[in-house]
Amino acid sequence: MKIMGKNAVSELIKTDKTVDKILVQNGLRDDESRKLVKDAKNRGYKVQFAEKAVLDKECESKRHQGFIAFTSDFKYTEFEDLLSGLSENAFLVVADGIEDPHNLGSIIRVCECAGVEGLVIGKHRSAQVTDAVMRISEGSANHLKIARVVNINTAVEKIKEAGLWTFALELGGSDIYKTDLKGKLCLVIGGEDTGVNKLTKQKCDGVITIPMSGKVNSLNASVALGVGVFEAVRQRSL
Amino acid sequence: MKIMGKNAVSELIKTDKTVDKILVQNGLRDDESRKLVKDAKNRGYKVQFAEKAVLDKECESKRHQGFIAFTSDFKYTEFEDLLSGLSENAFLVVADGIEDPHNLGSIIRVCECAGVEGLVIGKHRSAQVTDAVMRISEGSANHLKIARVVNINTAVEKIKEAGLWTFALELGGSDIYKTDLKGKLCLVIGGEDTGVNKLTKQKCDGVITIPMSGKVNSLNASVALGVGVFEAVRQRSL
Repeated sequence: MKIMGKNAVSELIKTDKTVDKILVQNGLRDDESRKLVKDAKNRGYKVQFAEKAVLDKECESKRHQGFIAFTSDFKYTEFEDLLSGLSENAFLVVADGIEDPHNLGSIIRVCECAGVEGLVIGKHRSAQVTDAVMRISEGSANHLKIARVVNINTAVEKIKEAGLWTFALELGGSDIYKTDLKGKLCLVIGGEDTGVNKLTKQKCDGVITIPMSGKVNSLNASVALGVGVFEAVRQRSL
Repeated sequence: MKIMGKNAVSELIKTDKTVDKILVQNGLRDDESRKLVKDAKNRGYKVQFAEKAVLDKECESKRHQGFIAFTSDFKYTEFEDLLSGLSENAFLVVADGIEDPHNLGSIIRVCECAGVEGLVIGKHRSAQVTDAVMRISEGSANHLKIARVVNINTAVEKIKEAGLWTFALELGGSDIYKTDLKGKLCLVIGGEDTGVNKLTKQKCDGVITIPMSGKVNSLNASVALGVGVFEAVRQRSL
């Protein structure tokens, strides 16, 4: 897997992921780039310099900012391990049917920033943690436990058995601001067009909704999750 | 300007924008498409059918879903008109230096969904409301007053003179959950890489921050705005 961009590579080298080498563009003179090269070398990574054209060839979007790291494939967490390792105040997110890599990357970033303990995605009908998703997540996928499951409904059942209050974040439910989100919690979100699957919604303890006052009445999936997750963060900090 | 996609066209025909014609792909049989064609005709719009290849030609991304509307260019609101038409409980957003059309589209969507009264963007160093932004906003740009200004700092001064409490949403400020966001309010956000300009931040009444607990510590601009704007919505509904 390739990790591209300054932030993503900078985050990568703080983890214990296996990095085969880091390709750096010749002639980068800015402080940030110099520091990143120095940090990577200090941590014992193999740094290899090359012309911009070489990096461009490795990166379709050309958005590598002079840094491409080559790592082993993304290491998912086993779902059972995720469940057995939950804290006293567990907080999980289930993302059901997010097909757009931009949305998945942004969702990973939201979860990591909010201190969510783990993200569960589907093995099918869902974007996976690819190079692009890693870049969009600004490297935060390296700091978040992500588990893949074949059946989202079964996963929701097991999450509930583990004692987490499980809410679907969707239109038409209870006001999120009037719902208690303290304690062990799991939020479930669905794909942009489809929302949370009907059966999955039934498996959940409830449906919660962000009150909206506009005419279009729908938020992007990662924005909606951000609002939901940070409302939980707010309540849990009281 | 071209408005593409089912949702965007569907939202467009609910407004009083000038639509020259709506180009519809031949052979669409689903209920949603039939309803949209019927609605457009009922409202007196000129609907013209064509082969998919014709629509593909008009739409670089090919993501037209069978519907392209041709309208006059996006009609910005004059900044002075925006200020003079504010409600008792005014709520504005200033987006400074958002260069990515995806982010601007998503920001517009956030503002519209949250009932924000107006969005102020820069005439320079900022994405403008193009066809792509309109599509990404799912048509919500049609329902939001958007004003363009040459100088963001001067605009912030005038917004403060109009009696709005003006906060920059940035790292390193007061906890947003401990800040009173009721009353006349303006939130200022900056571009993904640069944040809010230093001088602009000084012009504001304060800086407020979403508390984060991860290692990466930064949210996408539209997600951060979503969290900030909906925290204001929550407080204002109490």
